[in-house]
Amino acid sequence: MAAAGASASGLILSRPVTFVTGNAKKLEEVRYILGQSIPFNSLKLDLPELQGEPEDISKEKARLAAIQVNGPVLVEDTCLCFNALKGLPGPYIKWFLQKIGHEGLNNLLMAYEDKSAYALCAFSFALGPDAEPVTFLGKTPGKIVPPRGPNDFGWDPIFQPDGYEQTYAEMPKEEKNKISHRYKALALVKSHFAKAGYVFQTDSPI
Amino acid sequence: MAAAGASASGLILSRPVTFVTGNAKKLEEVRYILGQSIPFNSLKLDLPELQGEPEDISKEKARLAAIQVNGPVLVEDTCLCFNALKGLPGPYIKWFLQKIGHEGLNNLLMAYEDKSAYALCAFSFALGPDAEPVTFLGKTPGKIVPPRGPNDFGWDPIFQPDGYEQTYAEMPKEEKNKISHRYKALALVKSHFAKAGYVFQTDSPI
Repeated sequence: MAAAGASASGLILSRPVTFVTGNAKKLEEVRYILGQSIPFNSLKLDLPELQGEPEDISKEKARLAAIQVNGPVLVEDTCLCFNALKGLPGPYIKWFLQKIGHEGLNNLLMAYEDKSAYALCAFSFALGPDAEPVTFLGKTPGKIVPPRGPNDFGWDPIFQPDGYEQTYAEMPKEEKNKISHRYKALALVKSHFAKAGYVFQTDSPI
Repeated sequence: MAAAGASASGLILSRPVTFVTGNAKKLEEVRYILGQSIPFNSLKLDLPELQGEPEDISKEKARLAAIQVNGPVLVEDTCLCFNALKGLPGPYIKWFLQKIGHEGLNNLLMAYEDKSAYALCAFSFALGPDAEPVTFLGKTPGKIVPPRGPNDFGWDPIFQPDGYEQTYAEMPKEEKNKISHRYKALALVKSHFAKAGYVFQTDSPI
């Protein structure tokens, strides 16, 4: 495995983990939740966006990223899955949002009583180009509603998590972050890092 | 360019064109429409399925295939595009068909008067791994209807082409082949081959 060796306490990684994103906000969120224990840097890579099941897409993205980076990588993907549509639009939500918007997304469910949905976040971590990626899924159940709240973050205005009267967009950020699909997935990433006890011997500042 | 050189009459290809498919029926259709002028073989490749616009997906698939084959390749993709959904499900139709079926696909349009759609076929041809692929799009307009006809070929039972009272599934094969999106795209491929005047110097039987 590239950039990794074994030690008594855990694998030794000679390079910081590269979080693949071009989004400064996401990096900030990852840093905030994972704390300072893991040295991270971020990199925007031009990776192909794949079709398939969310977990498969995430693992393959991590494989491709680890080859390009030739070291440990963390990748992230988000899906919005409608139960009446058996999990779709799912990984294709970006295109649906872009082309038919919030109203169009609501319209997809016009034929169904069941407006339930779940927000799904998949993180995959690969130690290097030859390592099998590990995937962490965070899932927040809710329902699809006509848009409410600020329209500055994707499909947040049409997703109302179970147990709340507010949409993601209407919720205070701290409140949303406590229950969000991304938070849940990152909590699993954090727990994995804690258990694995990776030892970082890098020149990069932590 | 791999496996290609220049001659007075056109490029010389030292290898037959590899049509990337695992589907014997598709190969037969391609052979039938393109005739015997172009030496073909077929190969099932494990290529990633990409997200994006249909033409971009097709070109990228051809690039990846040409790298694997290291020679001239032809790839094919099919989309079913609903006008009310701005072209979606489009390249993701396979997943929608698989998960929500014919009834579910009709239901996606419940909110809309406009049931119009088009079947889109994209072929891309690349001379080799360093060549920019050329894409040929065939488009057949029609509308989405409740399923009618034999249920043995994808979404054919719910697509009724304009000017016909039958769905693709109900039409005799010869009739469908005269107006189909695949036929139209292949006609463009054929015309490209005729104009380009490729000269094949291969050991393979034509």
